[in-house]
Amino acid sequence: MSDKISKEIRSLVTNDGNIELSIKTAEIPTPGADEVLIKVEAAPINPSDLGLLLSFAADISSISTSGSGNETTTTMKIHPALMNAMKPRLDQSMQVGNEGAGVVVDAGENAKELIGKTVGLAGGAMYSQYRCVPAASCLVMDEGTLPSEAASSFVNPLTALSFIETMKMENHTALVHTAAASNLGQMLVKICKGDGIPLVNIVRKSEHVELLKELGAEYVCNTSDESFMDDLVAALVATGATLGFDATGGGNNGELPSQILAAMEIAANKTAKEYSRYGSDTYKQVYIYGGLDQSPTILKRSYGMSWGLGGWLLTPMIGRIGMEKFGQMRMRVAKEIKTTFASSYAKEISFEEMLEPAIIQSYAKQATGEKYLVNPHKE
Amino acid sequence: MSDKISKEIRSLVTNDGNIELSIKTAEIPTPGADEVLIKVEAAPINPSDLGLLLSFAADISSISTSGSGNETTTTMKIHPALMNAMKPRLDQSMQVGNEGAGVVVDAGENAKELIGKTVGLAGGAMYSQYRCVPAASCLVMDEGTLPSEAASSFVNPLTALSFIETMKMENHTALVHTAAASNLGQMLVKICKGDGIPLVNIVRKSEHVELLKELGAEYVCNTSDESFMDDLVAALVATGATLGFDATGGGNNGELPSQILAAMEIAANKTAKEYSRYGSDTYKQVYIYGGLDQSPTILKRSYGMSWGLGGWLLTPMIGRIGMEKFGQMRMRVAKEIKTTFASSYAKEISFEEMLEPAIIQSYAKQATGEKYLVNPHKE
Repeated sequence: MSDKISKEIRSLVTNDGNIELSIKTAEIPTPGADEVLIKVEAAPINPSDLGLLLSFAADISSISTSGSGNETTTTMKIHPALMNAMKPRLDQSMQVGNEGAGVVVDAGENAKELIGKTVGLAGGAMYSQYRCVPAASCLVMDEGTLPSEAASSFVNPLTALSFIETMKMENHTALVHTAAASNLGQMLVKICKGDGIPLVNIVRKSEHVELLKELGAEYVCNTSDESFMDDLVAALVATGATLGFDATGGGNNGELPSQILAAMEIAANKTAKEYSRYGSDTYKQVYIYGGLDQSPTILKRSYGMSWGLGGWLLTPMIGRIGMEKFGQMRMRVAKEIKTTFASSYAKEISFEEMLEPAIIQSYAKQATGEKYLVNPHKE
Repeated sequence: MSDKISKEIRSLVTNDGNIELSIKTAEIPTPGADEVLIKVEAAPINPSDLGLLLSFAADISSISTSGSGNETTTTMKIHPALMNAMKPRLDQSMQVGNEGAGVVVDAGENAKELIGKTVGLAGGAMYSQYRCVPAASCLVMDEGTLPSEAASSFVNPLTALSFIETMKMENHTALVHTAAASNLGQMLVKICKGDGIPLVNIVRKSEHVELLKELGAEYVCNTSDESFMDDLVAALVATGATLGFDATGGGNNGELPSQILAAMEIAANKTAKEYSRYGSDTYKQVYIYGGLDQSPTILKRSYGMSWGLGGWLLTPMIGRIGMEKFGQMRMRVAKEIKTTFASSYAKEISFEEMLEPAIIQSYAKQATGEKYLVNPHKE
């Protein structure tokens, strides 16, 4: 029996205003001719998973559990004012998990050569013990790569690489990145160092400054330092960065995106020869790519009229990048998964642990902190 | 003597932290072969003039005058924290006035046919009694057009027309406009009505609702109404507008740009069939095209990741539009200057009146209110 049943995590928004996490079971399908069956061994909980897992509307302080083991259900209230936005997902038990990795344990006739390989996958529903997917969607890892090493081979690596592509497409030559000590931030430091792209890292703790300097980061500005704005302006003058990626949107009391634009403007004006009534004509852009911090973004618009702020999402960006370049990016990730794109995790957890209130409260605010790796087969 | 001397308004930021407005004189030049000499008879004070005239850093409450008549100097303190940004214009006595109109009173040999014509001009330094400029930069008005009618033939008309071009270039099909009862807003109502473009007007007073309805506006939402957000969503559902132009950046306690994005998101989700964890994938854009209200913009990001906010300026947009289309826009303005592009003014004032504290305090906050027309020859 246990060979044919796969457990998976589900998230459900109910009519009475709650969100419920639970463990459900499904039959393991037999792969079609072009499909593979993956035994999922590792799947990270990324900030980008939380929108679906917890919804942005859950009141984490209202958490409670009932049942135990596979019968555990963890319940949180939805903020009533936000229930309206939940309508499209009401009463649909949703699978969760953007990415993960595992070993191919079965395959259709056209994909037999993948059996036994470690593959990464960004298939959704990765908090499942088994996933049956088209062979073409697998990122096949080199011999000797463990699923736990390949678990985060999509979201963070491709986001970091796509920052660089965005920079090139939009005619910038250097980058600013906030929450720069995150797994993604560390990857970006390594990519930029390797590719010779000037990068200004923004962190909020001195230990993060040390961490990034050890990785070879040249510019690290700490929002907790009194000299933060001066340091940032100096780094922007040195690098000429006019494009920033912000993970939170609400960092530094909501002012960080605006502070970056303001510092870019000051840096641009340091070299200006003529007074411009509308501010510098250097175009300054900040993209908010994380939506976890829901506190308001405060714009003190002291940067003229040549600026933009906006949301940034990986999927539409990949559409702009195109399939050929995207394929090259994927191959680079597989090749450098143990170096440039290595991820670290605070803890490996089971499905049951995923539903524990204390653990939920920890990963619910993980934006810049600890990161969990889910092992669907851990008891 | 009076035939050879032209008076003009000057703005000067001094080393000791003041901004000084005064009337200076210059000799009237003789036009070169391709030039014309214009007797300027009318020049509006636009919000976009204030950046140079008063600087964004002037403390209007500190205003004082000395001297009288042509010897008047009006002085305001610069906010000390903002003096640094004034460095590029320090100690340069600057001419002011983005646009105006007058009659050609002399011309070089290749431009004789313009003598006696009323022309509009966006030449800078329009708060001058006489301006000598290349004939090619004049917008020649039809017979029977007065300079006072042609004074505002660039900034507002071309801005309104460029909103439409931005909409087309960026793949939107309808517009939102704030401070919609302004001269510019009234033009936009008439253009959109004529061209069949759905327009959602946002105003803050019920008399403005009436004013725009009389001009034929279909959708007018009043931020002072309790039902403002519901009205806005309904108008956005009806029009499908996903592009907004905001005149102030800080309207409705700084929240207006964010409210527009939020309402666009709600409107987009009303037709959504599937739950998207990152919000609607309908791209929503708001441009801030006025910088007068310096209070912070507050973004309560409840609109997913597919949005943008940014500064918008006419000059770079004209670069994107291209010279051919721009030429067509100019011709349309000349042809419709008494109808679509008609402007109204609260009062015609002289140079001396321009320097009066009470009048400065009025036009310094004119963003959505009264508008003055300067007549350089008024005594």
